[in-house]
Amino acid sequence: MTAAGAGDSPVDGPTVAVVGGGQLARMMQQAAIGLGVPLRLLAEGADVSAAQVVRDPLVGDYRNLDLLREVGRGCAVMTFDHEHVPTAHLHALEAEGLACRPGPGALVHAQDKLVMRERLTALDLPCPRWRSVSDAAGLDAFAASVGGYPVVVKTPRGGYDGKGVWVVDDGSGLPDAGTPLLAEERVDFARELAVLVARSPSGQSAVYPVVESVQRRGVCREVTAPAPGLAPELAVAAQQVALGIAGALDVTGVLAVELFETRDGRVLVNELAMRPHNTGHWSIDGAVTSQFENHLRAVLDLPLGDTRARAPWTVMVNILGGESDAAVGRLFEGYPHVLARDPGVRVHLYGKAVRPGRKVGHTTAFGADLDRVRERARHAAGWFDGTVDDSEGES
Amino acid sequence: MTAAGAGDSPVDGPTVAVVGGGQLARMMQQAAIGLGVPLRLLAEGADVSAAQVVRDPLVGDYRNLDLLREVGRGCAVMTFDHEHVPTAHLHALEAEGLACRPGPGALVHAQDKLVMRERLTALDLPCPRWRSVSDAAGLDAFAASVGGYPVVVKTPRGGYDGKGVWVVDDGSGLPDAGTPLLAEERVDFARELAVLVARSPSGQSAVYPVVESVQRRGVCREVTAPAPGLAPELAVAAQQVALGIAGALDVTGVLAVELFETRDGRVLVNELAMRPHNTGHWSIDGAVTSQFENHLRAVLDLPLGDTRARAPWTVMVNILGGESDAAVGRLFEGYPHVLARDPGVRVHLYGKAVRPGRKVGHTTAFGADLDRVRERARHAAGWFDGTVDDSEGES
Repeated sequence: MTAAGAGDSPVDGPTVAVVGGGQLARMMQQAAIGLGVPLRLLAEGADVSAAQVVRDPLVGDYRNLDLLREVGRGCAVMTFDHEHVPTAHLHALEAEGLACRPGPGALVHAQDKLVMRERLTALDLPCPRWRSVSDAAGLDAFAASVGGYPVVVKTPRGGYDGKGVWVVDDGSGLPDAGTPLLAEERVDFARELAVLVARSPSGQSAVYPVVESVQRRGVCREVTAPAPGLAPELAVAAQQVALGIAGALDVTGVLAVELFETRDGRVLVNELAMRPHNTGHWSIDGAVTSQFENHLRAVLDLPLGDTRARAPWTVMVNILGGESDAAVGRLFEGYPHVLARDPGVRVHLYGKAVRPGRKVGHTTAFGADLDRVRERARHAAGWFDGTVDDSEGES
Repeated sequence: MTAAGAGDSPVDGPTVAVVGGGQLARMMQQAAIGLGVPLRLLAEGADVSAAQVVRDPLVGDYRNLDLLREVGRGCAVMTFDHEHVPTAHLHALEAEGLACRPGPGALVHAQDKLVMRERLTALDLPCPRWRSVSDAAGLDAFAASVGGYPVVVKTPRGGYDGKGVWVVDDGSGLPDAGTPLLAEERVDFARELAVLVARSPSGQSAVYPVVESVQRRGVCREVTAPAPGLAPELAVAAQQVALGIAGALDVTGVLAVELFETRDGRVLVNELAMRPHNTGHWSIDGAVTSQFENHLRAVLDLPLGDTRARAPWTVMVNILGGESDAAVGRLFEGYPHVLARDPGVRVHLYGKAVRPGRKVGHTTAFGADLDRVRERARHAAGWFDGTVDDSEGES
């Protein structure tokens, strides 16, 4: 037996450095294989999701500048599975000649929600009313200005999947973060929408259809593409907001804009992400070009691919780790039932151990009948995560 | 920097050993990533196509039984990128408890064309007239029985992509192989067709639409799905032949049956392959479930996926290494033009260095207008391989 050593592709072409070894990098690898583009991965652990499926992953801390230099050496560009790499490091890497996409000047808007709100407000883009607050008196004053409590309080940095977000009923509920917090009005929304844009350094942008996303306890549970019943003018408005943000912030790669659709017919920007996003997973099986391929094409400054949906309806449902001992969920053991029941359903498992609430995979169904498509995707995901117990169709 | 050591997936589930590191194993990896199934690869070289895109490939000779044991250790099943592993080794591995899919009893029919012809004839399946010949007199007698020369002579083992096949005009043209050769009538065919079947150990079979394939100098150049203008009864007959072979030979995984459509309206079996096949590459972008995913599902005895086409027409064109110094072809440099001209075209590059006639990638287009779809796929492949010189649409 011979273990293969690190080897470069025999094909002349760029290598892409990817920082972060989660499922986004894992799905990026599927697209990279098709494009013939080698990925060079820096992963948090030797066996994390993406590290299982690339050649010679590096393992270490993304806050270590020397390690970032090491993974980027010889690569045409560096991109990311998450937004947590310190911008100071990215500025250093860019000064040394490594293209970081998205660059630190854009990425800070996905890292710091206060910076994001300030910038979007300056750009006159639609946001919930907000204020930076440092104490209970400041929060009380903000609440009074938006019609009273409850209001939403967010830590500007580090939150994800509902973490770092609180709905508070009075000023005493202000978390003591030691730094200013972002207070926002609690939006009376009809539903949540999301728009993905891929944008290249040359400025080409391609926008995906507006989708509807359903959260459960702050975690994305289900995405429907396109958003059912969305007024065409509101869909265009949402796409224009996303294209406007991508251009103004000089985003390169995929930008995800999560939006509230208000009951009075407006869209307001909720969150930004500058990487492939859960609300775009439907595109793997549902669009001509997946968000992962368009992310790679964008960061390599290649022309972008067709973002159109291939079926009238596509529904993606996350497989979440079960939330009780009685429903720890099934992963590989879920296949025989799921695949036999529905030969057309698409299943994606991420190679992750099950933990309560953790995203460990997703299912996708597509077709012409939305109710049927939704039932199929939900049943499959529910069977895997243990929330559906038999094949009677309870989902 | 820390180099990651070999590590198992944290998810309980089977690992699949794959012998052979070509583009078929590479594309299998894309499907395996989606299914959450780790692949353990034995590759011919450290930097061959599939070895670039899997974790910790083993490198060595597939004729080495100890190495086969090593790659199979701890795996649920072993499968293959090619049919060249000695069946004696596979019998030994199966005796030691490792499931080989396809198994040696099936695989020999894809390894030895004489064995294949004997078996198909015994099963009363439609073949060209054939005979085992060892000398010029035998060949003359065969030729006389099929209306005279020219006839086709094939080495029973080791041929591929037109190698090991000769059209001979008299007995003196008989290659001296030292072993019996397969002589076949030269079929007056209207075109070539192919049918893919995925079959599981449980006996479930799923058949793909019949496709038309166009060869150039013995190498597949273009595949159209479904085969245009094919009479429905002939399509059914072709599918029944393929399903019959898969069942009778107990094939597990993907079986490709290459067929001649004769001018008098019959189908005759030309060649068999027991692995994902070039005539099924269209299914990656063109079918609900790709041949690579169905191959993995079949060898793991999981229910098979929907084989239906997603668009009225899908055309796949191989990118072949250029055949002159003036047309060595482009690979990565071909992207800007190809992707800008046609945002909907799908490109797959295999990470292989360009050599004349070598398959280094493929393009796929799909849509409702066959002429347009074909032009798009041909132009993109032609631009990469240097047979189209500008964007005026000469292809």
